[in-house]
Amino acid sequence: MTESRAAATSGADRTGQPVAFSDPQYTAAVIDLLGAIGYGEISAFERLAEDAKLAPTLEDKFALASMAAVELGHVGAIRDRIIELGGDPFAAMAPFRAPINAFHDHTAPSDWYEGLVKAYVGDGLAADFYREIAAFLDHGTRDLIVESLQDTGHSEFVVERVRRAIEDDHRIGGRLALWGRRLMGEALSQAQRVAAERDALSALLAGGVDRPGLDLAAIGRMFTRITERHAERMAELGLDS
Amino acid sequence: MTESRAAATSGADRTGQPVAFSDPQYTAAVIDLLGAIGYGEISAFERLAEDAKLAPTLEDKFALASMAAVELGHVGAIRDRIIELGGDPFAAMAPFRAPINAFHDHTAPSDWYEGLVKAYVGDGLAADFYREIAAFLDHGTRDLIVESLQDTGHSEFVVERVRRAIEDDHRIGGRLALWGRRLMGEALSQAQRVAAERDALSALLAGGVDRPGLDLAAIGRMFTRITERHAERMAELGLDS
Repeated sequence: MTESRAAATSGADRTGQPVAFSDPQYTAAVIDLLGAIGYGEISAFERLAEDAKLAPTLEDKFALASMAAVELGHVGAIRDRIIELGGDPFAAMAPFRAPINAFHDHTAPSDWYEGLVKAYVGDGLAADFYREIAAFLDHGTRDLIVESLQDTGHSEFVVERVRRAIEDDHRIGGRLALWGRRLMGEALSQAQRVAAERDALSALLAGGVDRPGLDLAAIGRMFTRITERHAERMAELGLDS
Repeated sequence: MTESRAAATSGADRTGQPVAFSDPQYTAAVIDLLGAIGYGEISAFERLAEDAKLAPTLEDKFALASMAAVELGHVGAIRDRIIELGGDPFAAMAPFRAPINAFHDHTAPSDWYEGLVKAYVGDGLAADFYREIAAFLDHGTRDLIVESLQDTGHSEFVVERVRRAIEDDHRIGGRLALWGRRLMGEALSQAQRVAAERDALSALLAGGVDRPGLDLAAIGRMFTRITERHAERMAELGLDS
């Protein structure tokens, strides 16, 4: 766990920016990462708003729509920070449209319960992944990311609805467990695609002269942690992972 | 204008509720009205989120999605107030699904600019209408309604985009002017349907022993005001009304 605690740097230069930003590659990588998170949140909004149509009741629809609105509410701070760093926020998001849209296209829920599991498990996976990366960044960026990944505050609602559905019909549990595994597989496959294509992000994880990086073993441990937390979320829903 | 300034009552009984609520018909009418506003906001969220798909750029999509999120953000306070008044919020919203959905089905934008005009003009119309009714209610309800109808804070964005489109292509102005009139017509037609079907709401407008009501002339003046404000909004967008 030590590598995930290592901050990029805690010093600051005369402009008040952490010294890490004197490295243009670091700045580019942070803008890239914020672009990914920002587009992920806009996209999560769109898909949750879409999936809310599957809600069996107006109350359920309102609950899922509220999760969508919370996701979108985080985008403003991400956008502002990219501008502060000298980037163009919507241009920074653009490279992530294809992989994130592909994830959503491959995981379009076929019913309300698949939508609920996706909202809970997909959101959790993305948050864990970005939080792991954030551990390698300067304090300011890290806090912004952690803040923007705050739970949408509707987890209890999802857990309660999914557990009740499984109680009513046990076959739903088997189907949703398969669905959870597929969400995990698709997420990993798209994350790998992003890592392969985005040099700045990969370089960030590899570290720099003044910054510790991740070796293969550390990346392995990171994925173990993400997988474990996925399993905990599935268990929370009453599902095998 | 005097009738729109008349408060239902400014006194309060021992429970702290305005005395108006000692009349079960008044309470029923307020719950009905809040149900209409609440469903209107959930529905506006859904349609704005849907129309955001038509956005030509990610920035535009984010702007319309933000309007959707603001609409949804108002629903919580409406829901809580209905519960305080002893009502079931989602049951209170149910009677308004058909007319409000019919409005949206009849006014599905065929492109991005129709979506923008609808967001601006439709939202403004609904807000004016509810504010007119709110003027007849107790202070607490009136403040809640006015609060929940606050501008979504993105008007400038809509005005700028629509005006620029008309500058680029004058024919767009003609088409959008027709569209604005259609929005007004559909809104009036559904409002009339609601008034005819919801006795409690109609009784509210008609007044009571302790409460001034609207006579036909006053209703006429109310519609004149709503129409004038609609024309102002259309002019703001650079459109004939």
